[in-house]
Amino acid sequence: MANLIEPKVLKGFRDFLPDREAARLAIVRRLEGVFRGFGFAPIDTPVLEYAEVLLGKGGGETDKQVYRFTDHGGRDVAMRYDLTVPFARFMAAHLGELALPFKRWHAAKVWRGENTQRGRYREFMQVDFDTVGTDSASADLEILLLIRQSFLALGLGGVKVHYAHRGVFNAFLARLGLEASSVEVLRTIDKARKIGPEKTREMLAEAAGAQNADRILAYAGIEGSAARTRAKLAEAAGADTPGVKRLVEIGSALDDLDETGTFVLDPSITRGLDYYTGIVFETFLERLPAIGSVCSGGRYDDLASLYTSQRLPGVGASIGLDRLMAAMEDLGEAGGATAGPAVLVLLLEEGLLADYHRIAAGFRDAGIPAEVYPEPRKLAAQFAYAEKRGIPLAIIRGSDERARGVVNLKDLRSRESFEGLSLEEATARASALLR
Amino acid sequence: MANLIEPKVLKGFRDFLPDREAARLAIVRRLEGVFRGFGFAPIDTPVLEYAEVLLGKGGGETDKQVYRFTDHGGRDVAMRYDLTVPFARFMAAHLGELALPFKRWHAAKVWRGENTQRGRYREFMQVDFDTVGTDSASADLEILLLIRQSFLALGLGGVKVHYAHRGVFNAFLARLGLEASSVEVLRTIDKARKIGPEKTREMLAEAAGAQNADRILAYAGIEGSAARTRAKLAEAAGADTPGVKRLVEIGSALDDLDETGTFVLDPSITRGLDYYTGIVFETFLERLPAIGSVCSGGRYDDLASLYTSQRLPGVGASIGLDRLMAAMEDLGEAGGATAGPAVLVLLLEEGLLADYHRIAAGFRDAGIPAEVYPEPRKLAAQFAYAEKRGIPLAIIRGSDERARGVVNLKDLRSRESFEGLSLEEATARASALLR
Repeated sequence: MANLIEPKVLKGFRDFLPDREAARLAIVRRLEGVFRGFGFAPIDTPVLEYAEVLLGKGGGETDKQVYRFTDHGGRDVAMRYDLTVPFARFMAAHLGELALPFKRWHAAKVWRGENTQRGRYREFMQVDFDTVGTDSASADLEILLLIRQSFLALGLGGVKVHYAHRGVFNAFLARLGLEASSVEVLRTIDKARKIGPEKTREMLAEAAGAQNADRILAYAGIEGSAARTRAKLAEAAGADTPGVKRLVEIGSALDDLDETGTFVLDPSITRGLDYYTGIVFETFLERLPAIGSVCSGGRYDDLASLYTSQRLPGVGASIGLDRLMAAMEDLGEAGGATAGPAVLVLLLEEGLLADYHRIAAGFRDAGIPAEVYPEPRKLAAQFAYAEKRGIPLAIIRGSDERARGVVNLKDLRSRESFEGLSLEEATARASALLR
Repeated sequence: MANLIEPKVLKGFRDFLPDREAARLAIVRRLEGVFRGFGFAPIDTPVLEYAEVLLGKGGGETDKQVYRFTDHGGRDVAMRYDLTVPFARFMAAHLGELALPFKRWHAAKVWRGENTQRGRYREFMQVDFDTVGTDSASADLEILLLIRQSFLALGLGGVKVHYAHRGVFNAFLARLGLEASSVEVLRTIDKARKIGPEKTREMLAEAAGAQNADRILAYAGIEGSAARTRAKLAEAAGADTPGVKRLVEIGSALDDLDETGTFVLDPSITRGLDYYTGIVFETFLERLPAIGSVCSGGRYDDLASLYTSQRLPGVGASIGLDRLMAAMEDLGEAGGATAGPAVLVLLLEEGLLADYHRIAAGFRDAGIPAEVYPEPRKLAAQFAYAEKRGIPLAIIRGSDERARGVVNLKDLRSRESFEGLSLEEATARASALLR
């Protein structure tokens, strides 16, 4: 068979087999439930867009990673590389049709032709949620509460959401006369966890001088309470700075609402991107802090300035689903999803086909996934199939049982058998065994 | 602002706004529930694959429509244009890891650069489900039962699933000595509904002679009962033809299981593709038969012969989600999905921010989606927002109500107000009003 084509996938791309895909769907479904609970609406945008729309008129560093080509009609097109740019384009295109403030979530694949070392993929899924069209503290607060609720719903235990305010940091740097080097300072602080305190101080000293380095490090520290950290920031940036007022507003509401200490005012959170202008945050799993932030984001001044002159301030966050799935696998949490059904109806006699399918339908009606083994093979083969798919229960019925109106139920995990049950008894027993 | 980029999408591509995307998600969720009930497992495959893998070594008519380009690494790649070819590649790649028979469903986007006239899109979603690794009658039967259940779950009312057997039709044509023109005959019969009886007879006469045209038309008719149609086919193709035996097996099980006359043995069903070798079927909505088949498929001899020498017979079907959504809109069935929450907590005083968010959380805990309006704007603006998003209930609470530990609830549909309710009373009242 020299003519066979090798069934390989591209580097950085993956098949999802049933267990992993079921786990991924279960995560998205749970998040979807939380989003719906908070009044966030789903949207979708095309995978392919005009390259100019996705990349703007310039050509940045990201551009090199974008899958871009000329289509049949000679159009310069590209596959989306994030969910933010298409969302900005979407808002500009549909402003007249949407109620502002607009709250959306979007879970979808994006593509980047990056280096696949370090466990990065070229096709991966992002989950984004944003509130646009308002500058309000309530929207900031809601995003933070939504993040907490999302991770609770995923069964991953507690999270710590570290937050800060970019405007406050900028005001502080301006007071030090460091506007010019502020991006460098912010990026250094952003990397501090990775590079360690020594290297951080060294880089800050280089960018801002030794004395300022100490001031910046003092600014970036977490004090004994959020109130004391807020007082320090007010001192450093000026109590009248709008960002300081915003932190007081959000912080006092969180003090009131957060019984579990989820939210940590942490002035070292800066996020790398220029994009952010207000609160910024990162989320760490209490049981797996080492994997880094699983949900990050912040407030921005204007979402869609490339496409519309209407200013659209907003606040949003993004969950990296791949990192999250890796974390769930580490924690032994598959999200409760298995790809197999709960009951396998064995096929003993082909003449009883309708009978077997009727029994399977009866289990389904009771909310128990069930299937009929498709071929009249030896029992050993049918049991081996059940085991390979992780199906816990089997129903066995030949002509004899049929004549008596009963079935036999076998629990394949414990090898326990329950014989001569009516269909109602079998359904009830199966429910009990699956509980 | 001459420098703005126009926020346009490519021809044949679409944004999904909240209501339509919520409807699409609701459809997929319901189908997912049915698939899980029948023991079908979810999988996913990459959007981009090696062009050779998707297109084989030849170059057919489809190829011209495929989005194909050279990636950063100089690889010849293409976007998937259906879910069948990637599934075949997937089966060949993972044969050792999967229990056979393998049952999978896959709901995902595919891309074809076709002419966008006649309401066709270049980006659209397919929902496929297949059982591979078995030739069995039980698998055929299960797919048919699954189709019926899927449309019941979507709330679209009854369907008629018309089915036939390609092997029987081929045996009949062989008896007439028409093997050479069988493809032409099958395609003519496949188009008969569209082109009408006159044109059908004319085309058949051209392909097979006038006398054979009459025989073929007689063969293709539906008799008074499935049993009589089966007897006619046995007569026409020979009672020993394996396909005739298979139709008897499936048909008698359906006679036993189908109380509602869903399944119609209809020898005129042929499906165009060479691919099919066993049963073939099409599905029509009883309330909208004119839109044509909403779910089609059949049995094939070998799924993945391009990639593996292991024979993988199977049976599968595909739902065209766009046609289905158009049908649901015609029928006024949005799938019960709305993008907005059920309750809007009005923001009257910014000092009560924590309070408002606590009230919203209380509704969510009771299973009622709720959000806080983000800004302290005039009541009229907040009510206008609720109306635009279709939010039916509002909670109104100022300092006075807060001091008394109560809220006011307003039903924005009936304009009815319920004043001075405790939070428990408000939740109970909201549940009742939403029922």
